[in-house]
Parts: sequence; structure tokens; C-alpha cells
Amino acid sequence: MVVLRSYVSGSWQSPDDEGVPLRDAVTGEEVARISSAGVDMGAALEHGRRAGGPVLRELTFHQRAALLKALASHLREHREELYALSARTGATLGDAKFDVDGGIGVLFGYASKGRRELPNDTVLVEGNVEPLGKGGTFVGQHLCTPSHGVAVQINAFNFPVWGPLEKLAPAFLAGVPSLIKPASQTAYLTARLVELIVESGILPDGSVQMVCGDPRDLLDHLTEQDLVAFTGSASTARLLRTHPAIVGNAVRFNAEADSLNCSILGPDATPGTREFDLYVKQLVAEMTVKAGQKCTAIRRALVPAALIGDVADAARERLSRVTVGNPADPDVRMGALASLDQREEVRRSLKALLDAGQAVFGDPGHVDVAGADAERGAFMSPVLLRADDTGRAEPHEVEAFGPVSTLLPYDGAERAVELAARGRGSLAGSVVTADADFARRVVLGTAPWHGRLLVLNSENAAESTGHGSPLPALVHGGPGRAGGGEEMGGIRGVVHHMRRTAVQAGPAMLTAITGRWVPGTDRTVTDEHPFRRYLEDLRVGDTAAGGPRVVTLDDVEHFAEFTGDTFYAHMDEDAARANPFFPGRVAHGYLVVSFAAGLFVDPAPGPVLANYGLENLRFLTPVTPGDELSVTLTAKQITPREGADYGEVRWDTDVTNQEGASVAKYDVLTLVAKRPEHD
Amino acid sequence: MVVLRSYVSGSWQSPDDEGVPLRDAVTGEEVARISSAGVDMGAALEHGRRAGGPVLRELTFHQRAALLKALASHLREHREELYALSARTGATLGDAKFDVDGGIGVLFGYASKGRRELPNDTVLVEGNVEPLGKGGTFVGQHLCTPSHGVAVQINAFNFPVWGPLEKLAPAFLAGVPSLIKPASQTAYLTARLVELIVESGILPDGSVQMVCGDPRDLLDHLTEQDLVAFTGSASTARLLRTHPAIVGNAVRFNAEADSLNCSILGPDATPGTREFDLYVKQLVAEMTVKAGQKCTAIRRALVPAALIGDVADAARERLSRVTVGNPADPDVRMGALASLDQREEVRRSLKALLDAGQAVFGDPGHVDVAGADAERGAFMSPVLLRADDTGRAEPHEVEAFGPVSTLLPYDGAERAVELAARGRGSLAGSVVTADADFARRVVLGTAPWHGRLLVLNSENAAESTGHGSPLPALVHGGPGRAGGGEEMGGIRGVVHHMRRTAVQAGPAMLTAITGRWVPGTDRTVTDEHPFRRYLEDLRVGDTAAGGPRVVTLDDVEHFAEFTGDTFYAHMDEDAARANPFFPGRVAHGYLVVSFAAGLFVDPAPGPVLANYGLENLRFLTPVTPGDELSVTLTAKQITPREGADYGEVRWDTDVTNQEGASVAKYDVLTLVAKRPEHD
Repeated sequence: MVVLRSYVSGSWQSPDDEGVPLRDAVTGEEVARISSAGVDMGAALEHGRRAGGPVLRELTFHQRAALLKALASHLREHREELYALSARTGATLGDAKFDVDGGIGVLFGYASKGRRELPNDTVLVEGNVEPLGKGGTFVGQHLCTPSHGVAVQINAFNFPVWGPLEKLAPAFLAGVPSLIKPASQTAYLTARLVELIVESGILPDGSVQMVCGDPRDLLDHLTEQDLVAFTGSASTARLLRTHPAIVGNAVRFNAEADSLNCSILGPDATPGTREFDLYVKQLVAEMTVKAGQKCTAIRRALVPAALIGDVADAARERLSRVTVGNPADPDVRMGALASLDQREEVRRSLKALLDAGQAVFGDPGHVDVAGADAERGAFMSPVLLRADDTGRAEPHEVEAFGPVSTLLPYDGAERAVELAARGRGSLAGSVVTADADFARRVVLGTAPWHGRLLVLNSENAAESTGHGSPLPALVHGGPGRAGGGEEMGGIRGVVHHMRRTAVQAGPAMLTAITGRWVPGTDRTVTDEHPFRRYLEDLRVGDTAAGGPRVVTLDDVEHFAEFTGDTFYAHMDEDAARANPFFPGRVAHGYLVVSFAAGLFVDPAPGPVLANYGLENLRFLTPVTPGDELSVTLTAKQITPREGADYGEVRWDTDVTNQEGASVAKYDVLTLVAKRPEHD
Repeated sequence: MVVLRSYVSGSWQSPDDEGVPLRDAVTGEEVARISSAGVDMGAALEHGRRAGGPVLRELTFHQRAALLKALASHLREHREELYALSARTGATLGDAKFDVDGGIGVLFGYASKGRRELPNDTVLVEGNVEPLGKGGTFVGQHLCTPSHGVAVQINAFNFPVWGPLEKLAPAFLAGVPSLIKPASQTAYLTARLVELIVESGILPDGSVQMVCGDPRDLLDHLTEQDLVAFTGSASTARLLRTHPAIVGNAVRFNAEADSLNCSILGPDATPGTREFDLYVKQLVAEMTVKAGQKCTAIRRALVPAALIGDVADAARERLSRVTVGNPADPDVRMGALASLDQREEVRRSLKALLDAGQAVFGDPGHVDVAGADAERGAFMSPVLLRADDTGRAEPHEVEAFGPVSTLLPYDGAERAVELAARGRGSLAGSVVTADADFARRVVLGTAPWHGRLLVLNSENAAESTGHGSPLPALVHGGPGRAGGGEEMGGIRGVVHHMRRTAVQAGPAMLTAITGRWVPGTDRTVTDEHPFRRYLEDLRVGDTAAGGPRVVTLDDVEHFAEFTGDTFYAHMDEDAARANPFFPGRVAHGYLVVSFAAGLFVDPAPGPVLANYGLENLRFLTPVTPGDELSVTLTAKQITPREGADYGEVRWDTDVTNQEGASVAKYDVLTLVAKRPEHD
């Protein structure tokens, strides 16, 4: 029998004892045994800190992103193997793809975000330079640097592939090593995933470790630099949150717990509308995908009182066509729960829910099973309940973590918001309506209780990923009962793994620390125009200065005629004077930036390849005929692009008049060639 | 005798019992009595939620900012009274200004940030619209909405004015009511502050409450919508963090605890340099301001081993000139500690520190006191220690919360970083050096252990606010021992009080929910040009369309000649072709945006007053001679300005060629008049 190994301190370790059995959800056969006996938890954390962290921190965000992308491609090639193993957890092929492809998708998503939204650097400069003194000699800037610890990732049984990967991706991109602790029940699938990762050799040593089995004293070894991310039950979350090492060291702790998510049908969505059908279809999908074992599944279906019978009928009809059975059978729509224990747990919760309502579909004690032994596998029927007394606590508080949902009636947007809030915090909610006003009221009203809200209707149905799907670009988590945490959310999830530090300094010192030119720092004006410098030779602070050039009334009139921009402020002295912001006729802003370009551009071919954009342009002082314009263009940020023969250079641009007042400030964005290899 | 009242549930409530005495730090006389007996804590929280929250949430960020500004002005007029009362806490006039003016400064700072960095709206739209499907019919957007609870603010004794105000300002701006719980010792000063706030009538009912005395069952009534912000000792932070209501409801809990902050002298800063003097001056200031009772004060002075004697000598000389005594006496540089108990506590900690080093200045048991009774007042001498064995734990772990610091030797930047990290997380650190490389290494190395780092030298000394001053624009807090929290940090502190929700929808639905035009939503093209509409009449989606206009080679050559921008890509066919991004000669980007303006501008005087800027310009497709340009300009965001007769309108701008491909996309920023009142 396979005994799962842990991957710690740079090697695979078999446990010191024979472990406990993990059983196939469908057949009840032993799949593997699991134990963490003999694993030195403190040493594993220290290995992450001493081996993994320093190597990761040497890489830039773009380099880490490239590794995530390579890993995603590698795993995609091995996904069939992961699908096959998924079936033993009770998952259909569709369920397996949700888990496996979803996880790989998170890696690709973070690889792409890292490349596009983070600098090719090891430190993240966040937000604006804050002026802290009137003289400009004292400024502040926030920096995010990777935590020098390990991200301990405690995963739930229901997503053995997506769970670890959605936690790994942002940690890795941040430069923080991961220690994965899978839930025992489905750990054999996570263990195979980690084997694939380790075998690939793509990620640096120490950047990913895994402990199979009881975590034992793992948390006792946490320091103030470590993080814990937990997905699982609210009760376990409470226990972990009060762990002395977590409390004592103020360890950053993120919990994502199951919740009583609601889906609200709009009053406009009567039978026969597209939205009615979308609502019922989504409700049934959320009940049956992963046999309802999803933290984000719909537990409370809020339906206008007048429509509850119609929804019950339509859902019943759809549910009656769901085949339950062996997930390897392609006709099967819903597989088994993860274990017999899990089914017992669901049945216990169902009993409480049945005190507050009645079943309109499904028998908790019986189900017809296709292609498997109904006694040995953890099968159960989807059960749809209806609770007309919405004042009862159970539907809002008891979560049956399986194919179970409760229909609840409401009347009016305000009441829908009230009932939604009774979940005391949810991961995900949805509103199915074509009525924009109803959607707006419900979304803004329920937002404080939700991490994510989906508005579903015919506008987005073809592309919508549905109520239950967390996406890497969006936050996943929710307040209160849902754990109060936030995962993913694009770069937010990366920053979560970093320390934000406010740095106060003079501008020149801040430039030296951040590698970005901060206004107030001396500019470097040299004989050679900076447009003649290859990316490697350019330094922040390198400056081109041009001007002065007089702007004449003829220029303004000519520009107006040439471009067609005859706005009165440029053309009509009296009308311009009547404008509260202008002293009389003024030059076009576009004329100012065009003349500025004429003053700073170095025309001959050279390393500067293109001006691809412009940011944060503000016109600060009106330019009137007779004014003399000068410009300084200063290299502010230099970003080599990985695997390309050029990079991006951002130039601080300041256009001034004859009195030295800035008339326009902006950033010019250029592509600049790297030095050719033969040079 | 004054018995402090609580301000809860809309009225001032005197306690049911006679309370316990609070004593003057200087004379030992009773100042007031304090008790919370009879205060209904649950009702107070519910009052905040039901009265304060809804009224605050009706106001826009700009309206809340205006109230904060009005409050700041009101308090500034009453500051002398607050200074006078501060003296009874042991504070000198300088200390009192640090506390009172600092707090008022936070209000002004948030008023200004709210006006400049938040929308004039009740909801904060955060980050970019995230495309979630390839067809553009499914998109995501993060919204921040105010928590529907109360921000419970548990403050420390040392900053009875700044403490409550720095917590109130971001909560109020977010739309969340505050319940202030001052530390008993100096609660009479906070109570007077809250009286001034309430008397002013500026803030809405229920938006500020205060409980004087024991919080009793306050925390038991917390829900998932409430927040707790705590400043005080690490041990109390641990207790609060594990409170069942906080844990059970995943209440957002922020702790800011004292820490063993370090200040590092650079090896370049030898005696005779400006930096050496700055270092010593700052060290002595941090020891003596507020009698060293500052969470951010320097506890560990890390000094190159070769310079430790010089620093000790110079600091001793400065310290010997510090007059300790009655803070009302203008010659006194350092007043009393907050209480005799507090002094006992400091002496106990000093005893532990003296095991690991020796005093180079000051006698813990004796001090000469000016103008006060040394027996009755909580006076003590500043004590500077020196610990040559940096391996000892005490200097890195024992905090004497008074006028106490320890000199520690180091050699090399790497060692300085190591020693700094032994504090296991600090609020603030400083590096005093003119050596940019040393500063960069120390800042990047120690950042993961710090919430704030100051680099001090002659560049910024004249304007620097010093090691110990948190500022509203910067984060205040630190990892590990410092509590793991984050306060202020500009708008970050506002968002902390809000719930972030990912909203998924079709573009049109998202436009309806956010009030901002999302690309993909239908545009509204009408006969009337949108530039003819006053702010109130304009709707997001209103669109001006213009073009097509052919760009000729003559246009390009003419523009080059006119502006002077003769960059080769516009002028030289062969050279342009050799460029990796261009098919041949291309039009200037500035020509494209100038022509686009000519196509969308409506020239006659009207509501559109000025184009004040441009954002996020990207040139997406090269424009070659013969291309035909068209433009659509769509109102994307409409922001009325409070108290002005105009507002800001942001226009989505899309310039396309004859094939419908976007050649440039950007946002045009304009000022648009409100409808004149006589219309």
C-alpha cells in the first residue's frame, strides 16, 4: 500500500509509522495511508526560511512569474493523470476539471498579472511619493518587501489541486516559500500534484514543501515573519486563530471558511424569462457540482414569494434528471461525497434544516446509484428544501456541506438584503435579474456581507463562470462566518505576503533606495542626449533639457486650423476671458505637449524605439501667446523586459514657462533597446 | 470632584457609582473619577449601528471630508484648553502640542486626502475593470462599501488626543461610526476632547461615542460588521485578539503595540559630521519627549562599535542639560511619567536591562526635579544604557516604557540588519547616514520588520518630522511584537474600515451599479453634443463621435516641421521600417491626439470649461499616412465638486482607424459647469 510521503527540508520523507488509511469515496477501498510521524516541522519551516526564501527574493517579480507560467504548462501536460486520481475522491470528470484546470488557471493568471502589473524588480513601490514637508526635501513612499518567513497553507479536502495552487501562486510571486498541508481525506491527489511540481525542477529548492498528515507542532514554530492561510471549517478557523504562536507573534492569518451563500432571484425573472431559467440551472449546478462540497455553493435560494412554487417545480424537474453514481461513468452528473463520514455530517445538518422546512426534492436516506455500490460509496441524493418561515435560524446558520440548498421566500429588494445579511458573512452571492435598479440596490445593500457578488442575466450568461467560481483576478473570501479573509484578488494576494513599510527620506536618498527617480533629486544633464543610451547604459536621473520656445498667437491659430480644435478658449479673447480658469486666449494643451516633444526629441535612429503612451498628464498653468516653453525629461523608471531585446523607460516630463512655473507635468512612456549583443 | 461621563446612545451618562480616582502626574492630586458602571454597552454599539452608521453612509466621501475639516478647525480654536489639561498628565507644552496639534493635523490630513483621493460618492470603486471573458460580456470590479458596524477604538494613555483622532478620522471618512474607549489614566483629557466634539454639533449623532472606564462586556456585543482598533501593550493585544466575540465573528482587529524600535547610526557619521549630531540630538529627543512614553521611541541605539564611546559622550552631554520637573515650567524639558505606577513599571524593566548592560547616564532611583514635589510626582531621570554584549536577549526584548534607551555596538550593514530584526517587529526605525548605499542596504534589509523607516541626514533634516512621529499619509503599525497592524497610511486606513467586494456582471449592469461607464456598455449618441450639457444633465454613457479624417503624409511632415518633432519614425521611411514596431513612416502620437481633439471638440462657449489633463494614454496601433481616424468620447465618470459651481468629468476616448482598430485609448479629464442657479 502506498504511504504518502512528505516533502520537507529538500527531500521526500516517509513517515516513521504505518499511518492511517485513506479510502476511495466510491468503492471504500484503501487508496493510500497517511502519517506525519517523524517529520521535523521546525526544521521544515527553517528550511523554507533559509533555503527557499533567499533564493526567491533574489528573483524579480517577472522572473517568478515566468516560473509560474512554466509550472502551469508542465502541469497542464499531466492533467489527465490528475483527473484520473480525482475520480477516487468522488469527483466526476467535470468536477476534476473544475479543480485541476481551475488550479492551473490560477498559475497562468498570476503569471500574467505578475508580468503586466508588477515591476521587473524585487521590491514593489506602492502608491505615490507623499510630500511630507513644504520645501520638498522630506518625502515618503511605501515599499512592499517579501516576508522573510514561510506561508503555511492549510487546505480543505474538496479542492486538492486548486486549493494548494491558489495559495501557492500569490505567495510564490511575492517571493515567499510555501508549506502545503493538504487535508488528509484527499491528500493523495495533492501529494501527486506536489510530486509533479518537484519532479519538474522548475521551482527553486525550498520554495515548496508539503506535510502529509497531522501538522502536530508545526504552528508552534511560527515566527512574526510567517503567514498562515487556512481553508476549512469555521470551527477549525477559530482554533487556529487563537493558537498561541499565531496570537503571540501577530502572525498574519487568513481564513476562508464555508458560508451560507445566497442566490437571489429578481422579481422580474418570472417563468418564461431567460433569467428564470438561468437561476434554476445555476441553482442545480451549484447543488451538484462536486456533490455540493464547495465553500461557495448556494445554500440559500432567495426567491420572490410569488415565484417560489415555480422555482421549486422547475428545480425539481432538473434535479430529477441528475444521475448520481460512479464518477468514472460519463453519464453520471453527480459523484460521491468525499467520504462516508462526510455524508454522515451532511445528514446531521440536514436533520436540523428539516426542522425549519421540508424537502421539495430528494430523500436524505436514499438515492439510486449508477455504476457503483451504494453501500460502500459515499453517495447521496441532492436535497432541495423549502423553508417558508424565514424567521427560523437554521437556514441562515446550518451549513450542510453537500448537495443541499434551501428555498426561502422574500418580497422586495430591502427584504432580500436583510435575509442575505442573516448569513453573517458569505464568500459569494448572486443576483439573477435583468432589472438594473434591483441589481444595484441588492449589490450595494449586500456588499458589506460578501466577498464576491455575481449579477447574472442574459447580458453575460454566455461568458459567466457562475456563482461558485472564484477567479484569480478577484478577491476570494468574505467577512464574519466566511472567515474574514481575502485570498487572490490579483496583486492584492501578492501584497498580502509582503510587508508594507513607509520610508521617509530626502528625495535623493529615496531615489537611491527605490531605484526610481523621485522629483527633487538632482538631474544628470550630460552632453550626450539620453535617447542615445541603451537600456543598460541609462540611469535614473538622466535628463534631456530643451527650449525655450515662444508660443505665438499665430502658433495657436495655426494649430487650431490644422487640427480642427477651435475651442473658444483658444480662439475668442472675450469668451476666453469669461472662462473662470483662463486669463484670455490660451494655447491648446495638445499644442503644449506637441511643442514639448519637439524640444526633447532626439530625431536620429537610436535606442529609443517608440513612445507607447503617456500618463498622469495635468495642465497646471495656462499658456498664453508670448509665453516661452522649456522642458526637462528625466529617466524615472527603467524596466528591462525578460526575454526581449528592449525594456520600458518612464520619463518624468516637466514643461515650464519663462517664470519657471510648470505648465504641464506628465510621464512619457517609451520602449528602449537593450545593447545589441555584438556591441 | 468631577466624575467623567460617558457619551453613549445620544447622551452624556454619569456612572452609577462614585468611580475610582485619576491622579495628576505632577502633584498626585485627584483630577477626576472614572467608572463605566451603568453604561449599557450593547445599546451603545447598537446606537452606533442604527443611528450613526446610516447617516454617515448617506454622506459622500467629500461631505465627510468637509466635516472632518470643520471639526479640525473647531478643535484648533480650543487647543489652548487642551494644552492646559495635558500638563496634568505630566506633559510639557511641547509634549502637549505633539499630542493635540498632531491629532488635529490628522483630521486636516484626512480631510485633504478624502477630497483629493476619494470620489464624491458613497462607494469606492477600486482598481481596474477586470475582463473575465474574451467576448467582453463578463467583467469584474472591486467595490469598497462601509462596514455596517462600529469601530471600537481602544486607546493608550500616552496620546489622549492624537490617539482617538487618528483612529476616528479614517473610520469617519469611511462612513463608519466610532466608539472611543480612552485609557483610564488620562481619560479626563480625551473626555474633554469628546465634549468639544459633541458641543460643536459638527458630526452627526451616533457617529462618535465614548465610554470612560472599564469596557466590561463591550466586546461581547461585537458582530461581524464591527471593527476593533487597539493601541497599548502587547499582552493586552493578545488578550483582545483571542476574545470569543472577536474570534467567533472574525472581527477585523488591528493592534498597535509598543516595540523595541531601533535607530542605526551609519559608519560614515563620525563625530564632527552633521549626521553624528543629528543622531545624538534625535536619540535624546526620543528619550525625553513625552518622558519617553511613546510606542515609537528609540529603545535600541545601534552604533558602529568604533563610535559607541563618542555617541555615549555626546548623548551624556546633551542629557545632562535636560531639566526634569513641573511641565508647566517653561524651562523644563521633560515632565513626569503618567503615574507613579507607570514609573514603577519602568523601574522594573530597567532592572532587567541593567542585567545586560550598564547605565552611561542617569540614576533610575534619583532625579533633580524643578518646580515640583519629587515625592508626589512621577518623575524620573532619563537613563541611557550601554550593552556591549549584543547577544543578550534583554535589550531586544524588554521595553522600559519611559525615558530609557540602550546603546548597542555593531559592525557592517549586515550585522545592523540582523540586530534590528531581533526586535521581532517594530513600529519605526531610523538610519542616520549620508551614505546612500548603506541606507539602501539597511532599509531594504530591515523593511520586513518595520512599519516605518526614516532615513535622516542633512538632505532632509530641516523638514524631517523625526523618528517618532507617525504621519497620516503613512502607515503606522508594524509586524510581530508591534502588533501586526496598520493604521492611517492615507486612504489605506479608510479602506480598512470598508468591505471589499468583487462584483461580476455584464458591462451595462456594472455601469448601472457603479455609476461609472464601463467599456462594452452601450453609448448614448444624441443630436445635442454632450459638451452642451451642464453637469447635472450629463449622464455616463453620453457620447460625442467625430471623424473620419484622413491623415496624410503632408500632415505628418507639416506637424514635424511645426512642432520640431522630427523623430525618424515620422520622417525617414527606411529607418522607420527598420524599427521593430513600425511598418514604415508613422504619424506622431501627439498628432493623433491633436486631430482627435479636433474631431470631438465642440467649439462654442458652453458648460465644458477646460481640459485639465489626460490619463492612461496608450498608442495601440501605428497610424500610417492614408489612415482615416475616428473618435468616440464617452462620459465615464461625473464628479460634482462640493461647494463649487463645476465638477470633474472623465471621458473615455477611443481613436480608431478605418478598420475599426483602436489606435489610441485614453481618458480626457475636463471641468464642467453646474447649471447656473437662475436657469
